Amino acid sequence: MPHTVKSFDAALQALRETLVEMSGRAASQFDAALKSLRERDDVLAGRVVADDAEIDRLNLMADQQVISILALRAPLADDLRMAVTALKIAGDLERIGDYAANIAKRAVVLNGFPSVLPKQSLRRIGKLVRGLLKETIEAYEQGDAAKALDVWKRDQEVDELCSGFFRELLTYMFEDPRNITPCSHLLFVGRSIERIGDLATNIGEMTYYLVTGHPLDGLRPKADPLAPTT
Amino acid sequence: MPHTVKSFDAALQALRETLVEMSGRAASQFDAALKSLRERDDVLAGRVVADDAEIDRLNLMADQQVISILALRAPLADDLRMAVTALKIAGDLERIGDYAANIAKRAVVLNGFPSVLPKQSLRRIGKLVRGLLKETIEAYEQGDAAKALDVWKRDQEVDELCSGFFRELLTYMFEDPRNITPCSHLLFVGRSIERIGDLATNIGEMTYYLVTGHPLDGLRPKADPLAPTT
Repeated sequence: MPHTVKSFDAALQALRETLVEMSGRAASQFDAALKSLRERDDVLAGRVVADDAEIDRLNLMADQQVISILALRAPLADDLRMAVTALKIAGDLERIGDYAANIAKRAVVLNGFPSVLPKQSLRRIGKLVRGLLKETIEAYEQGDAAKALDVWKRDQEVDELCSGFFRELLTYMFEDPRNITPCSHLLFVGRSIERIGDLATNIGEMTYYLVTGHPLDGLRPKADPLAPTT
Repeated sequence: MPHTVKSFDAALQALRETLVEMSGRAASQFDAALKSLRERDDVLAGRVVADDAEIDRLNLMADQQVISILALRAPLADDLRMAVTALKIAGDLERIGDYAANIAKRAVVLNGFPSVLPKQSLRRIGKLVRGLLKETIEAYEQGDAAKALDVWKRDQEVDELCSGFFRELLTYMFEDPRNITPCSHLLFVGRSIERIGDLATNIGEMTYYLVTGHPLDGLRPKADPLAPTT
């Protein structure tokens, strides 16, 4: 339904564009962080850390755009839901950027140690979470509730892969005490990737709500939280 | 300035009460999680995990209260800022609850191992973060910008104590391979406490903005993020 005030559509469109730019940046920051870890590339890692400020800036901009839409337009129904959801999704994208920067910082530290990376597992988890993030962004941009629901359901896969990764790191630490320090950093890298997966799932959840008007009920399926894995 | 519509004041007041209840619960969940860890109390830990659902429920309620205020009242200026800030603070309190539940889950796992807790350090960090959380909640409830600013400035203390704690855990792991698994869990406990400190700081930041109308500029003082500690 077209709005009578054209500038209102323009304001919503500008907010949408901020979110699209943020999500593109969050995804490419995550890619670059994983690459800096895989290829032991300090320069790339440094760039990821530095570029995080741009996502923070866009998040503040999204906040201001939402507040200005609320103040000047007093939107209702779908538009109000769009504005409030945008506020939350922008916050989640900002946190994805933070986790990507954390991974890049760990990459720099890890380059001070001989490579003990469990590369296969790390690549597998990175690929899975990267895929979920891509899918959740598409679901948001395309307003696709089915796709959003699919992301939401797949969070458990991430938890399971991460539990395996954590167990693998412990075996490295047991094998050789020289692995203890680098593997401790890798525990946190694994946790950061897992949290990016959680945030992708959150965005899927909010996209579902945005498109359908109904919240996703019930808790997400999770791997047994008490399993003594790590 | 009194509102002409009394029910509007009532709606804002109800939202405020939801946040006060959430913050009380988040703080006591954090207390109980630390206690369950310190006293190796599985029953208490189980209660913390179970009670997290109540904070989640209150968070959804806060969201609905905000959306209803925005939809029905179209608030301006101070009231709009109050509503948007409430949305973000509720989200942060919900995450504090999640981290408290995570600590409690780790406490249960840790009880399967002989006690290797670096009790002194853990108590010190817990006490510091508990104090920041208390202060930030008071700042919000009392609308005290100076107190909020004080919390915001003290985040670095948490980071420094946590870095020391992480280093200490590594020494335990080097000393005896049997410490590797429990200390890995404790690394995550330390990280959860650190994140609760960050969230307390966030709430301080938003309270400052809520009270003064100005965002806190610049990045928080942080300990050197690249220091190869953990």
